[in-house]
Amino acid sequence: MNSTVSAPEERQPRLLDVDALAAAIERFARERDWVQFHAPKNLVMALTGELGELVEIFQWMSADESRDAARAPATARAVRDELADVTIYLVRLAAVLGVDLDAAVRDKLALNAVKYPVEKARGHNRKYDAL
Amino acid sequence: MNSTVSAPEERQPRLLDVDALAAAIERFARERDWVQFHAPKNLVMALTGELGELVEIFQWMSADESRDAARAPATARAVRDELADVTIYLVRLAAVLGVDLDAAVRDKLALNAVKYPVEKARGHNRKYDAL
Amino acid sequence: MNSTVSAPEERQPRLLDVDALAAAIERFARERDWVQFHAPKNLVMALTGELGELVEIFQWMSADESRDAARAPATARAVRDELADVTIYLVRLAAVLGVDLDAAVRDKLALNAVKYPVEKARGHNRKYDAL
Amino acid sequence: MNSTVSAPEERQPRLLDVDALAAAIERFARERDWVQFHAPKNLVMALTGELGELVEIFQWMSADESRDAARAPATARAVRDELADVTIYLVRLAAVLGVDLDAAVRDKLALNAVKYPVEKARGHNRKYDAL
Repeated sequence: MNSTVSAPEERQPRLLDVDALAAAIERFARERDWVQFHAPKNLVMALTGELGELVEIFQWMSADESRDAARAPATARAVRDELADVTIYLVRLAAVLGVDLDAAVRDKLALNAVKYPVEKARGHNRKYDAL
Repeated sequence: MNSTVSAPEERQPRLLDVDALAAAIERFARERDWVQFHAPKNLVMALTGELGELVEIFQWMSADESRDAARAPATARAVRDELADVTIYLVRLAAVLGVDLDAAVRDKLALNAVKYPVEKARGHNRKYDAL
Repeated sequence: MNSTVSAPEERQPRLLDVDALAAAIERFARERDWVQFHAPKNLVMALTGELGELVEIFQWMSADESRDAARAPATARAVRDELADVTIYLVRLAAVLGVDLDAAVRDKLALNAVKYPVEKARGHNRKYDAL
Repeated sequence: MNSTVSAPEERQPRLLDVDALAAAIERFARERDWVQFHAPKNLVMALTGELGELVEIFQWMSADESRDAARAPATARAVRDELADVTIYLVRLAAVLGVDLDAAVRDKLALNAVKYPVEKARGHNRKYDAL
């Protein structure tokens, strides 16, 4: 994303690295001739469907019960599986769109730090425009 | 995650690395005393809300139009922002649940390779149980 | 929907009636030349986006707090608005698909009564295949 | 919403009527002692899960293919079932919240007519603040 030359010590460290996963999914799709189906519009729907399955796991739990969902025998496997599915489609979507998730996330966190100053935001969850 | 000793050449390389992002979000939440709100049940809803905003960007586009959404002046910024929001909540959710996304994704890809053999899955999008 | 002649007392009463709303939305869309955008694929995405806005209202609330959300001054208006948006897109989607919601719902409730017998389902929320 | 006395002929006709369905669901839940689980926070998640299943049906279809989804043998049953599930949870959610869907929808349509004047909105899908 950045074509200017910069010394290594000036670069910010990455917050996340999804390159290997993006490449693995691309290869998987290519082998099955599925790239044709992977328009962003379709992928964001696939992501919605997988997230729906994740939501279903938590829907009747109390907030406290949900904290143990990945350790409870009845739900651990499902939680892990659905988190994986959501992650796979999210990384695929970003790749097809040509979005650098690391840069996007970095910018968003910087923006959030401005929108939610520590002093004003502490201890409640009002939206930034209601702080 | 793996406490057994293994020679480097036996270890599989990571597919994704979200550790630095998870730590940054944790710090952000802690500074604002927001950890109390971050039950998985709540976070999966926050993820749903952010995904809804991403979906809205694509809802009236054709599949072809959606391919350029991250480059079109009218939508590029929004696409990048919403992808970042979804990523942040997803990584936070996995961290709070104690799920290693890299391991979960690796297992899921291995499972998918079995569920969707190249020969049977090529060129169509039927679910594995309808192949 | 039913072209066979049947005595009134044999017909089941309707569970819901969305005809007037479906007609009002159709008129609204037609006046703005929006029918072209109303493919089911697009409408289900619009429905997802609106539901995301509804979910956002509840994401940080406890279950108990959520019970009063339509009466709390801070959220009553938003809850009502987003419920309306979801309803409008749902009714529009069914209309465009040619699905009779009343008949679909009636069939589903009958199915649910079989899947969740009172004796077995009482007091817990396991899925029917885990009863 | 309207506390003034008005003659019946002045009242606007209902746009939708979900009373019988709401009563049927209430009875169904009560018989199974499920009312305890039906906090709005939980119900909006259940609605999300069901909508996710509806979205999955359409995710790989083109917009044109989606128009026939309720008539295509492969998908007709699923489309009808998932629409019913979404409707059931939506009506239940509104009932538990004490929201009159008919009044909410009526107000929203009136608002939309102001936000999207026919002359300005015709033939495109920009959001009202971008008209």
